[in-house]
Amino acid sequence: MKKIIALSLWVIVQHASAQVPDSDAVKKISDEIFLNGHCYRNLEFLCKKAGPRLSGSLQAQKAVEICRNLMANYGFDTVYLQEVMVPHWERGKKERGKIVPAKGEGKILEKGRKLDVTICALGGSIGTPEKGMAAGVVEVKNFEELKNLGREKVAGKIVFFNRPFDLAKFTTFEMYGGAVDQRSRGAIEAARFGAVGAICRSMTPAIDDFPHTGAMHYEDSIQQIPFCAISTKDAELLSALLKKSSKLKFFMKMNCRTLPDVKSWNVIGEIRGSQFPDEIIAVGGHLDSWDLGEGAHDDGAGCMQAIEILRCFKALGLKPKRTIRAVMWMNEENGLRGGEEYAKRARQKNEKHILAIESDAGGFTPRGFSMTMPEDKKAKILLWKDIFYPYGVYDFSRKGGGADIGPLERQGVPVMGLLPDSQRYFDYHHAATDIFENVNKRELELGAVTMAIMVWMVAEHGF
Amino acid sequence: MKKIIALSLWVIVQHASAQVPDSDAVKKISDEIFLNGHCYRNLEFLCKKAGPRLSGSLQAQKAVEICRNLMANYGFDTVYLQEVMVPHWERGKKERGKIVPAKGEGKILEKGRKLDVTICALGGSIGTPEKGMAAGVVEVKNFEELKNLGREKVAGKIVFFNRPFDLAKFTTFEMYGGAVDQRSRGAIEAARFGAVGAICRSMTPAIDDFPHTGAMHYEDSIQQIPFCAISTKDAELLSALLKKSSKLKFFMKMNCRTLPDVKSWNVIGEIRGSQFPDEIIAVGGHLDSWDLGEGAHDDGAGCMQAIEILRCFKALGLKPKRTIRAVMWMNEENGLRGGEEYAKRARQKNEKHILAIESDAGGFTPRGFSMTMPEDKKAKILLWKDIFYPYGVYDFSRKGGGADIGPLERQGVPVMGLLPDSQRYFDYHHAATDIFENVNKRELELGAVTMAIMVWMVAEHGF
Repeated sequence: MKKIIALSLWVIVQHASAQVPDSDAVKKISDEIFLNGHCYRNLEFLCKKAGPRLSGSLQAQKAVEICRNLMANYGFDTVYLQEVMVPHWERGKKERGKIVPAKGEGKILEKGRKLDVTICALGGSIGTPEKGMAAGVVEVKNFEELKNLGREKVAGKIVFFNRPFDLAKFTTFEMYGGAVDQRSRGAIEAARFGAVGAICRSMTPAIDDFPHTGAMHYEDSIQQIPFCAISTKDAELLSALLKKSSKLKFFMKMNCRTLPDVKSWNVIGEIRGSQFPDEIIAVGGHLDSWDLGEGAHDDGAGCMQAIEILRCFKALGLKPKRTIRAVMWMNEENGLRGGEEYAKRARQKNEKHILAIESDAGGFTPRGFSMTMPEDKKAKILLWKDIFYPYGVYDFSRKGGGADIGPLERQGVPVMGLLPDSQRYFDYHHAATDIFENVNKRELELGAVTMAIMVWMVAEHGF
Repeated sequence: MKKIIALSLWVIVQHASAQVPDSDAVKKISDEIFLNGHCYRNLEFLCKKAGPRLSGSLQAQKAVEICRNLMANYGFDTVYLQEVMVPHWERGKKERGKIVPAKGEGKILEKGRKLDVTICALGGSIGTPEKGMAAGVVEVKNFEELKNLGREKVAGKIVFFNRPFDLAKFTTFEMYGGAVDQRSRGAIEAARFGAVGAICRSMTPAIDDFPHTGAMHYEDSIQQIPFCAISTKDAELLSALLKKSSKLKFFMKMNCRTLPDVKSWNVIGEIRGSQFPDEIIAVGGHLDSWDLGEGAHDDGAGCMQAIEILRCFKALGLKPKRTIRAVMWMNEENGLRGGEEYAKRARQKNEKHILAIESDAGGFTPRGFSMTMPEDKKAKILLWKDIFYPYGVYDFSRKGGGADIGPLERQGVPVMGLLPDSQRYFDYHHAATDIFENVNKRELELGAVTMAIMVWMVAEHGF
């Protein structure tokens, strides 16, 4: 027991000594971002000037220029682009979906209800034949059900994956994790049993009218079939109609396609450390987004927060002892090529990343950081817990970093992820509603403040 | 030191023993509200069918009926109204504001900028003369500045209170607390020095186009003058123009008025305790709202959450040992008559309230509870902390209950307030934007879950 008490005292002492010299800087940082912050207006600029910026698109290229110029104008020590080849998938403009009642069963639709269904191709899907295609629909909740139906009942049909988010869970990321296999592997599993197309219920806990896109995959040995998402409201409608008539058909038309890979870039801005320039803290988000909204929460927010951290230090004349890098990774959504390229080059150049932090869970009010790193480093972060508490940041209990810093993590770099409140994230995620207007200024800034403090502490005290 | 260890062990043991029997009920409660919840659709019904419901209005009366019917239909053990006389102030429909440049100074307005300014009378204000009034404007940041200007510079003028929220603070309630004296006492302080009217910058951290109303006061011995709010954007515009021309005038026209007091009601629904029916837990919010929006966050949310708690217990067949009362207090916004009447009658009937909980800080994701109660009772709540943590509820460090339960608190009743994340609250507070569409289903439900668990624990274990 004595040992425990001694340890507790040591922790308290460490804590107290760590807090005094930093509290000034912490207060300055939060005041600068809250009172003179640029990240909100920078996010507006990115969302409105570049807009949706799917990898390989002209808008993505524009976004690269916007970020480079922004950081150059702030006078960061170094601003540069890192070339990376990215996939180039295009939605096309001819998406159309429709419920087609079987002959004589037109009455299954209540009066006033439309036959048209807004669909969106999932990212990476092939298109349909030019004139579209119609087929009977088989609804399943999971791959087990699909397997039980077997080829006999699935062949020639469109498989409709309709397992909703499990609302009994607390974070929406848990809900997403429990449902997203339908989207990512649905086309593979459906085609395995001879389906000619697939439809996925949108990945959101909300019941609304917006289809949500996102990455889907094919497997080499299995027939590629077109795969789209429909809104949760339409999913419930389709499901209800299928109960009335198993003979209805679904018509879908999409002219999406995959083009050859395209040259693109990670965008990097740096403030060199004053004492240990070779020790690098990378902080950032991904610059590409899906094409339906403006990529405001996902992940313009993370990119603009990262730039804000460096801007804030510069504006305050704070000179970090270690090098801080704001990184806007390209192609998180449908390839992760930027994250992989970044880690590869870091290894080639023998760069020493002491920490990588990603913000890719929306510009919502932060609640904590996830961490994947050795226990002694976690313990160091926990010593700083009380510095974060006044900003509503208390949860350091979860594991994880972020998709873009996964490749660094696999090289042994300690990683963290900003954990904003998750409740609203999937209302907007990959949908037309992920626009600047749905980001709150204070929430976005709080995320920037939280990460800026973390970055400052690590830059100051080492890691 | 031994004592501390013994105490810690005792806490752990207590904790463990408290948790096991409740975890089943807690899980059932949260599942019921998340999976089968009614509070979101009930809030929609209230907002769309009654709408804005200022005390004394027909809409407020409609809201009373809606809540009574809702609870009666759920089959609560008792549902009743508690009569209370409330103030009756009406906005009128002729609000108009305008910047009037001095002769020959029309150019101070940039091309394309409008002279018209959207104003809203503050609650309780007298109107202007029927044709409106125009006067020169004196801008101040606080009452000290006003006093320093003195009667000479203020008499005959309109005083413009323009101290913004201090964004360096963390919660928006702290910001509000630091600014709201301008709104509540502005007319008194301005008239003290001979002002003929007053304008207040809206009480919000956002820079937008919406004027926010709210209560203002007069003092018996001091001349009553008309008092309105303008949006933060217009406040910045007016301030900038005043720097260019101190001679500009502001025109305001309002036909708001105070009518005789009107009969209204608190609405109460009850589930009688199975073992200790005389021990009452009151939980609720206020049913009245300001008249510009729909009172969705303020405070339809709190009312519908309170009803949801009782609905959930009934749906699950959970029989609380102690009596639980959902209370929709009337007239929090401009009088607090409902809260006072409720406490007065509780005392008359010698009712024993063991706890009162108010939710009146918006339907946002909850972070904790504020508490004003004896230390031993706080300690009891803290033993349950881990039950709340999985729902993101961790902060039990603040003091306070709520305006409507203030009169109970003064009688010695332990009080708590739900503490949702505050960042977005004042974007909507008392403005036209406080509508149902700005409430997120999950966030609203999380507040209900959190309070339902608290109510259940207290009903089960006593207090």
